[in-house]
Amino acid sequence: MLINVPETVVADGLRGMAAAHPELSVDVDNRVIVRRDAPVEGKVGIVSGGGSGHEPLHGGFVGPGMLSAACPGEIFTSPVPDQMVRAAAAVDSGAGVLFIVKNYTGDVLNFDMAAELAEDEGVRIGKVLVNDDVAVTDSLFTAGRRGTGATLFVEKIAGAAAEEGATLERVEAIGRQVNESARSFGVALSAVTTPSKGSPTFDLPDGELELGIGIHGEPGRERRAMMTSREIADFSVDAVLEDLRPSGPVLALVNGMGATPLLELYGFNAEVQRVLAERGVAVARTLVGNYVTSLDMAGCSVTLCQVDEDLLRLWDAPVQTPALRWGR
Amino acid sequence: MLINVPETVVADGLRGMAAAHPELSVDVDNRVIVRRDAPVEGKVGIVSGGGSGHEPLHGGFVGPGMLSAACPGEIFTSPVPDQMVRAAAAVDSGAGVLFIVKNYTGDVLNFDMAAELAEDEGVRIGKVLVNDDVAVTDSLFTAGRRGTGATLFVEKIAGAAAEEGATLERVEAIGRQVNESARSFGVALSAVTTPSKGSPTFDLPDGELELGIGIHGEPGRERRAMMTSREIADFSVDAVLEDLRPSGPVLALVNGMGATPLLELYGFNAEVQRVLAERGVAVARTLVGNYVTSLDMAGCSVTLCQVDEDLLRLWDAPVQTPALRWGR
Repeated sequence: MLINVPETVVADGLRGMAAAHPELSVDVDNRVIVRRDAPVEGKVGIVSGGGSGHEPLHGGFVGPGMLSAACPGEIFTSPVPDQMVRAAAAVDSGAGVLFIVKNYTGDVLNFDMAAELAEDEGVRIGKVLVNDDVAVTDSLFTAGRRGTGATLFVEKIAGAAAEEGATLERVEAIGRQVNESARSFGVALSAVTTPSKGSPTFDLPDGELELGIGIHGEPGRERRAMMTSREIADFSVDAVLEDLRPSGPVLALVNGMGATPLLELYGFNAEVQRVLAERGVAVARTLVGNYVTSLDMAGCSVTLCQVDEDLLRLWDAPVQTPALRWGR
Repeated sequence: MLINVPETVVADGLRGMAAAHPELSVDVDNRVIVRRDAPVEGKVGIVSGGGSGHEPLHGGFVGPGMLSAACPGEIFTSPVPDQMVRAAAAVDSGAGVLFIVKNYTGDVLNFDMAAELAEDEGVRIGKVLVNDDVAVTDSLFTAGRRGTGATLFVEKIAGAAAEEGATLERVEAIGRQVNESARSFGVALSAVTTPSKGSPTFDLPDGELELGIGIHGEPGRERRAMMTSREIADFSVDAVLEDLRPSGPVLALVNGMGATPLLELYGFNAEVQRVLAERGVAVARTLVGNYVTSLDMAGCSVTLCQVDEDLLRLWDAPVQTPALRWGR
């Protein structure tokens, strides 16, 4: 691992992020990453956060058109309410703040507590819970479905709506619509090693894969002998489509877990597009890359999100963050 | 590995890239990725290429403000002259074409042959050889110094000059200036596995690292017991500064080899910035991420490029490619 000591991995990462991104305001001590121009007059603030180890999620999505602020916790550990309250105060212009929360027990509890505290301080809070992972119901850190790749869609599209001047109620409704329209399925080709453990957190022998893996290496549906890219695409897309039956075009996220080469992700995307075409699903936009990762895990996930014209317009709207940038 | 069979990895990747990037014209059969609006009237074309396995280099850098076209070879294998001639013909508007060539024997020979063939067809060709890696002189595939991270700086800055309407002679001179102003040093924390071999191409035991690694896993300067991020930054930056003694500000690329988590790369960047500050080197811009990779290798490299006002302005100029995007 490219670290000093496990205890400083998150702080070191934040210092390095601050140096690379002067357009962001990074509070290393309090662990809050904020758009430098926040609060933006009249704009709803968008705050997310969660355990570290999934970069660029969430800090890499802070900037015009997406998140107003992000709160990174320790590796695979929820941030604390203090961080979220501080973030909300930093980005609230009076128009209120939307919390985007991945469905893990710690995140949910801490964002709930933070919402109460922020509201006590006079900040109006909305909330969207992201629970898109169809692999399993209930898991190591989750009651219900886990929140994974759809988080990117919720953050981008709610962020665009806020940038356009939508009200808190409207931004929240759009965020919920995106979550309800999106489903994900992930596959691990290797286990993940956290800095504190220093060895793989679960046992996945060479030549096997885990279908339905979580982004912290939580167990999925089943362990199998290695499959081809074509077979993994068939299995993953069908798992998503079993749960989401799109009646219109979708956004597709073909996401890497961290250690899978971009060349392989593009090859996997070719297979994902093939399955979607075979199933009669039209793809409006495709994003391929490492966006919602699990440290050094090899593997991939597929997220589909059905979009209407309004959601597609918001997806296409300009965004200027470290990890997602287009338009102006 | 997330593949079908080793034989189709590059073609599969190109098909998936085509699906994700309708703004590019991807010729899967002939293995050429071209800006869709090429040739651009009056503009010098910029063509690069090399073995696959280093993505997003080079295909991910095709687009306005950077490459006009890229030619991907097989994994870690030079593309053939046919690809380059085809690319040159596709992007030449009459203003000529610059070939940007990383210093590996096969690439140099094939681009040389392609230059002759293209010139026979009436295309004026300029050439920049990139040889920035200070780790070793002569190597597995190279006479002289290897070409690595500086390729990104050459492609971006020469691409910006071409976009502004500079002549072929001027674009070539700028590309050479960038190469001469840039140096790199890389470190491997794990070996790389190619699809055709299916197992690590060299032996790097857990708990050891290789200082001065090449981007195909070619041997570096020495093998050592694992070092901290701080120690690796000291060693790498000093290796670069021994060869490049900047008298002005630099661009810094803190590059991941593929499997090292972004969080760790940011942490490593904090250490790189610390060393540079200690050595009195001013940093104008910093880029952190996986840009010049080596499939699933864990590790990192540092590239520094001294810039004057003109080069800095060209670096900041708008760029719209899959992997590098800013401005408009």
